[in-house]
Amino acid sequence: MSLHATGDNAANLLQPPHQRPTWLRRQRSITAFKSDTSLYKLKEQRGTLNAAVEPVYVGLAGAQSSDGEFQYSIALHDGTYSINSEINPTELTQNGNGSSDASSRVGSGVSTPMSFANSPDALARAIIAYLSNYREKNLSKPQGASLTSQLARLCPHLAVRLWQELDILPFIFPLDPDDPNEKDEHRCMPLDQQAEWMARKTVKQFNVKGELPVHMGSRRQVLVDLDGLVHITELGSYEDTVKKETTGVATMHFIDSLKKNKTKIAFFNSTAQGGGVALMRHALIRYLRLAGVDCRWYVPFGKANIFRITKDNHNILQGVAKHGEHLTDKKIHALDGWVVDETEKCHWTDFGGPLAAREKGGADVIIVDDPQMPSLVKIAKEKDPNRPVIFRSHIQVRADLADQEGTATSKVWEWIWNHVKDCDVFVSHPVRAFVPKSVTPEKVGYLPATTDWLDGLNKHMHPWDEQYYLHEFKIQSYGAGMRQLALPDRKYIVQIARFDPAKGIPDVLASYARFRQVYMKGEPLVNIPQLVICGHGAVDDPDATKIFKETEDALAGEYQEFKDDVIIMRLGPSDQLLNALMSCAHVALQLSTREGFEVKVSEALHKGTPIIATRAGGIPLQVQDGKSGFLVRPGDHDAVAKHLYDLFTDSELHSTMSEFASKHVSDEVSTVGNALGWLYLADELAKGEKIAPNGQWINDMARQKAGIPYEADENKLTRNVNLTDN
Amino acid sequence: MSLHATGDNAANLLQPPHQRPTWLRRQRSITAFKSDTSLYKLKEQRGTLNAAVEPVYVGLAGAQSSDGEFQYSIALHDGTYSINSEINPTELTQNGNGSSDASSRVGSGVSTPMSFANSPDALARAIIAYLSNYREKNLSKPQGASLTSQLARLCPHLAVRLWQELDILPFIFPLDPDDPNEKDEHRCMPLDQQAEWMARKTVKQFNVKGELPVHMGSRRQVLVDLDGLVHITELGSYEDTVKKETTGVATMHFIDSLKKNKTKIAFFNSTAQGGGVALMRHALIRYLRLAGVDCRWYVPFGKANIFRITKDNHNILQGVAKHGEHLTDKKIHALDGWVVDETEKCHWTDFGGPLAAREKGGADVIIVDDPQMPSLVKIAKEKDPNRPVIFRSHIQVRADLADQEGTATSKVWEWIWNHVKDCDVFVSHPVRAFVPKSVTPEKVGYLPATTDWLDGLNKHMHPWDEQYYLHEFKIQSYGAGMRQLALPDRKYIVQIARFDPAKGIPDVLASYARFRQVYMKGEPLVNIPQLVICGHGAVDDPDATKIFKETEDALAGEYQEFKDDVIIMRLGPSDQLLNALMSCAHVALQLSTREGFEVKVSEALHKGTPIIATRAGGIPLQVQDGKSGFLVRPGDHDAVAKHLYDLFTDSELHSTMSEFASKHVSDEVSTVGNALGWLYLADELAKGEKIAPNGQWINDMARQKAGIPYEADENKLTRNVNLTDN
Repeated sequence: MSLHATGDNAANLLQPPHQRPTWLRRQRSITAFKSDTSLYKLKEQRGTLNAAVEPVYVGLAGAQSSDGEFQYSIALHDGTYSINSEINPTELTQNGNGSSDASSRVGSGVSTPMSFANSPDALARAIIAYLSNYREKNLSKPQGASLTSQLARLCPHLAVRLWQELDILPFIFPLDPDDPNEKDEHRCMPLDQQAEWMARKTVKQFNVKGELPVHMGSRRQVLVDLDGLVHITELGSYEDTVKKETTGVATMHFIDSLKKNKTKIAFFNSTAQGGGVALMRHALIRYLRLAGVDCRWYVPFGKANIFRITKDNHNILQGVAKHGEHLTDKKIHALDGWVVDETEKCHWTDFGGPLAAREKGGADVIIVDDPQMPSLVKIAKEKDPNRPVIFRSHIQVRADLADQEGTATSKVWEWIWNHVKDCDVFVSHPVRAFVPKSVTPEKVGYLPATTDWLDGLNKHMHPWDEQYYLHEFKIQSYGAGMRQLALPDRKYIVQIARFDPAKGIPDVLASYARFRQVYMKGEPLVNIPQLVICGHGAVDDPDATKIFKETEDALAGEYQEFKDDVIIMRLGPSDQLLNALMSCAHVALQLSTREGFEVKVSEALHKGTPIIATRAGGIPLQVQDGKSGFLVRPGDHDAVAKHLYDLFTDSELHSTMSEFASKHVSDEVSTVGNALGWLYLADELAKGEKIAPNGQWINDMARQKAGIPYEADENKLTRNVNLTDN
Repeated sequence: MSLHATGDNAANLLQPPHQRPTWLRRQRSITAFKSDTSLYKLKEQRGTLNAAVEPVYVGLAGAQSSDGEFQYSIALHDGTYSINSEINPTELTQNGNGSSDASSRVGSGVSTPMSFANSPDALARAIIAYLSNYREKNLSKPQGASLTSQLARLCPHLAVRLWQELDILPFIFPLDPDDPNEKDEHRCMPLDQQAEWMARKTVKQFNVKGELPVHMGSRRQVLVDLDGLVHITELGSYEDTVKKETTGVATMHFIDSLKKNKTKIAFFNSTAQGGGVALMRHALIRYLRLAGVDCRWYVPFGKANIFRITKDNHNILQGVAKHGEHLTDKKIHALDGWVVDETEKCHWTDFGGPLAAREKGGADVIIVDDPQMPSLVKIAKEKDPNRPVIFRSHIQVRADLADQEGTATSKVWEWIWNHVKDCDVFVSHPVRAFVPKSVTPEKVGYLPATTDWLDGLNKHMHPWDEQYYLHEFKIQSYGAGMRQLALPDRKYIVQIARFDPAKGIPDVLASYARFRQVYMKGEPLVNIPQLVICGHGAVDDPDATKIFKETEDALAGEYQEFKDDVIIMRLGPSDQLLNALMSCAHVALQLSTREGFEVKVSEALHKGTPIIATRAGGIPLQVQDGKSGFLVRPGDHDAVAKHLYDLFTDSELHSTMSEFASKHVSDEVSTVGNALGWLYLADELAKGEKIAPNGQWINDMARQKAGIPYEADENKLTRNVNLTDN
């Protein structure tokens, strides 16, 4: 495929921003930051540069009259009150079926316009145009919008478009006066009142921190997307995220089979938020709900003292625990007792529970994705010995230590393996060095960590939204007394990673210093990029605090001369903020000294942000060295500095690499690719087939089984699981 | 009573802060700001001076073992996650029955300590000490705490103490394993898990803006304090807020009678939040729920276009509408139709509704406290002609204009009066000039606006909390690009009032300028106070925007030389922020040119903040000129400047006035005083007595009826309703 097969520029510009090719979007985003109407310039003009953009919450209602005309109402709420002071209803019932009409009504700060449109598409366009104009005129950010189910039925793509085009979290709530089962009191509720009700409902979905809390159902089932009330994707949304003819068809093969057989799949792990497993699981369940596969996800209540032990175990497995830390029999007793307690409290083994035997309503396939609860594998087998159980080991186990008798690692591993050894398949990150010898070789199959191209972390955002999130970043920096991002006046380099000893933050500083001292020496400051090091970090995480402090100390000492250009921030859990930081960076770094898989590398590629990353763990499997990014040996500061220099001075290199990267991301790291692996395993095992991967990649087996093996020119992760230095 | 009858200082210091006399508290607050351990200094040390103090949310559970020992658990939540990383349960099950033990456990950032105490009081002390230490060590602010009903039963004063002593909003949720009706799944839930559940419940009570939303019940009844789940007061809390022997006994007289007769009282007005009526009503209902009086409060759904008309009417009644604005027949039709619609939608006149006839379950006494819905009086009388209905006119009507035929005011007044003329009593602010001649003189009784000494606006806060709110104020100023408060290095003068043309903000500026130019000339800046002008102001209020801008323009022009010392801020609806701003000010101003009653004047007195206020509306009734404050003629800038000079240079005058003010606030402006008036009216009228105030103060009649007439030396508002210049 030619690198320049993206077609005519003018035609690209006519597409909605999220459908434009990546390289074009990148250019436009950066230009947009510099424009006089950028959020930054407008806030500066109003003297509120240090103030947050005010959030607003939207309510949307719509109906179709007997003559087929669509009518709609938009209500806005500021979190405390409806915003409705300036409404003039007689002006608002004018006819208007497109964006120009809608925008002309924005000036008055109106909250409940009501208008008419003549097609579902015109309806969606009018609402989107209204909200788009509103946010730009008022410098406020619509955070979420609730649609009545009537409106969602009349205008089926509206919810997803709100998410894609305006970064508005869309909810659909049951309110449909045309539905014969609707309550009488709702039947006669006028549209504007419906919209106001929806706006209030929108406000209520967000917690005190402005986040959407994860809801739990009975038996501690994770109710992903508020059990489907949130609609950020539809089945069609996924079509463009993978190669339809191969990955798409193969996945559908197993979906069809699982649906036909009504196979029930149950995932288990220890937490529903925070961390990679939870991120992947939300995305997978969202997709499978739309696909119609019966797949549920359960987590325990959790208990502070238990998590203290499991965190220690985690460190021991990775070989980074403090000396002398080990798993005692007392702790084993506590851990195993805890899983038994949780199983009981959550009614997992009761009649109808997921771990009950299949004839008692249990799931057909069990997947335990957590080394914190290995005994769930045992419990699942005890309840129904012939039911397939898959165990996923998602951490970078120091197999060398696990294999060495007498080490703390071998003790923890022995405990885990003892509980999981009866599993049918043992799924690991595609790195041989993470699999201890005790694991039955036939059971080992490789599956990478994955990410979702449609969620907040990766979706393509409108420049306005990127500006909004970088403005939030600046406010957070300001509040933390941190140095400031100079964008749009200067470019920046980013490393997004936890403040963890293995993430190579000292190497990031040293590489940046070398880049400045050797390669950019004498260059005017405006041409020199800043460095941003950030990641999610809880204030109470002692590791993070230590590393944060060491980094600041290094900047105050050794790297004093660059200090003003290095921004280090611990961030809250905002997907879109991380997305914007990665998208707007000129170059990304990922200089881990040890790594599991680190799918953030593929995220950078997907956004077309050239990345310089280390050969550690699963990283080299994702990058085509010299084409989609640069791979370096951990600790090779000069190599990093040299590549930085090239990427900042050779714009041809940068744009070629950006474009190549965005087009050469494997389907395997996406939600659909992930679904392919799991669904293949679930379908085969549920049918009673024996699966013995014997070190194969699960997706290779899945594609083979579906009759669509990988094509020679297809993007796929490097198949060499021994590649890494680890 | 001697001014120095407050007793021994040492004894005062031993009392909990909220029980110390006002003058002592004031001194300590200001000293505390300057200490090295003040929030300001600590934030400065940590380099997070511009960052908000992190909120935390608390869950509390407790139980009593069979040997009588109390056991408790505390869980903390950051809004997203439980904060539980550092727990070490074995250390936490130590015995500890007081504050010193509790505080020793704080360092580790523990979230679920569990401990034992040997009495309800020790239990409360331990929990309070833990939270107090936690917030000081971690510089975080516990916003709310949920108690299980079991803990609340075992430790009955804990909830209220959390509010009084730590400014933590306390909730009590039903969870009591000792209750025979409790669910089985809760019976065996361990204490730490109960506490964690409660912490999650706490988080959920706050909306996305960190506020407690007002909840509505069926028929749009306002569910004050989440229908009683919030416990900021107990009946005993009110004892110290009024003179027990007079106001207390008189109020109890009517409470007893109403309870005996099971009299049902229903209040109506147009909104449940924002504005003085709503504030007073929340406080009244809170008190009456504890007292056991059946008093309910209803509000309509509201409708934007109607509120536009009623806002215009409001301005017309006050004589401040723009020229030509008048009430048309079309608008009258819309208003009256709206009230009929709301009555129907809210089912107020249906069987069991508050406006149904008494034999159909309606309330026994109806009180309509809103000129926006006067036709409710008519509807109430139509449904049950003999049922008493009270109308309260709570705005400063320009009676002179209302009396003058052909004016816009007379037209609006005619419409109102036509609907309310059948009321049994017409209650007005105690200002004769607010009552048009058309009002039947026998029906007119006076009742002031009131405030609540126990809620967020007025309660005495711990210096730590005052620092917290002033820190919030500084962050808001920072974000708005506003100049900064120099406290604790310099003192400040405050005017807290809406940005409204009648609030005399130009006079505030002119007076401050004169004070600086004439009286403080040549004084070093550190001795010159700043000026803070602030008030709740919606960004979409055009009046507020205009006045804000005019003020900034005046500072950029005429008053340029003082600009750096004048801070003008529109604030969100945080009661405690206003409380702290008023409490920590050296002098308060209230220079309104026209005024209704303005109970904020009494709030300043109550806090011991000397006030300089104008003779406008009800203000002069509240201030003893020269003793509790200074009264000036509106526009007399030199008088204000002179008094400012005296208060800033004569510390003896300031402290004498502060002490006198705090001790000479009338019971009549408090919630219990307010209840006295309403309950007297309700009780008498419900019994079928005829009440003809004929220009008397309702509280005089109430005290008389209860057999406890005012004593000569009792603090009461000036009885001269003709005093005002209006």
